[in-house]
Amino acid sequence: MDQQKTRLFLDDLVVGMPFSSGTIDITADAIRSFASQFDPQPFHLDEEAARPTLFGGLAASGWHTAALTMRLIVDSLPFDGGLIGTRCDLTWPLPTRPGDRLRAEGEIAEINPSRSKPDRGIVVMHCRTLNQDGGVVQTLTASLLVFRRPATETL
Amino acid sequence: MDQQKTRLFLDDLVVGMPFSSGTIDITADAIRSFASQFDPQPFHLDEEAARPTLFGGLAASGWHTAALTMRLIVDSLPFDGGLIGTRCDLTWPLPTRPGDRLRAEGEIAEINPSRSKPDRGIVVMHCRTLNQDGGVVQTLTASLLVFRRPATETL
Repeated sequence: MDQQKTRLFLDDLVVGMPFSSGTIDITADAIRSFASQFDPQPFHLDEEAARPTLFGGLAASGWHTAALTMRLIVDSLPFDGGLIGTRCDLTWPLPTRPGDRLRAEGEIAEINPSRSKPDRGIVVMHCRTLNQDGGVVQTLTASLLVFRRPATETL
Repeated sequence: MDQQKTRLFLDDLVVGMPFSSGTIDITADAIRSFASQFDPQPFHLDEEAARPTLFGGLAASGWHTAALTMRLIVDSLPFDGGLIGTRCDLTWPLPTRPGDRLRAEGEIAEINPSRSKPDRGIVVMHCRTLNQDGGVVQTLTASLLVFRRPATETL
């Protein structure tokens, strides 16, 4: 596949089109490091302190899971102009744990060409982030700004 | 205010209760560092590469804005048991730029005691993340798990 064809425009998408990512491993050190900077709560910082909490042991911040998911999908959905989210809806059904190997998969759910700006549209994507056991650690519904193929460009 | 009173339970909340955070400054280095780890797209990594894009200059990843907002609200909403999100809805009306000073403000929008688990409930919070000019860089509607005050505990 030549480089040209790996750039996706709105015109290339169809509802139901699936995608799947590579994997990322998450360590206890990475969980603590992210949490100390952005989400310094005991259940994200310390195994002992996490045990009596709702999580029952060290768990990654949901924002860490979200950021790692972004890393996974940036490499999986090569939209021309980039992956630009305008709205996201997130849930975290299961915690992300030290040693988890995460991957993301999903599909294009809606394609809405803009009425006012003919060069672009909004694409709704569903994405699930899974651990190595197939457990869902995050669901994400994202509205993404995707550009149309310029009229001067041919396949 | 003694330490006991700074822990908030579901019973302490009322709809409309406001909160506001301290501030965090964000640098170009921090934007690039976060992006290189989690969202390696040109408009988050390089000022020159960002100029011809939709952003017109270096902009923070939306997930960076989200993570910084979490840091701001962790210190502002001292719920007993922690700040545990079950669902979040995010929008990013304006980009976060190098040199921005961010703060968060919001209010309690709903309080829903659990029917099946009498020790807890779900609280819906609205939160806006603002830059130094009052521009809204993020809106967040979060559903949070909040515990009731244990029956054995008195004010």
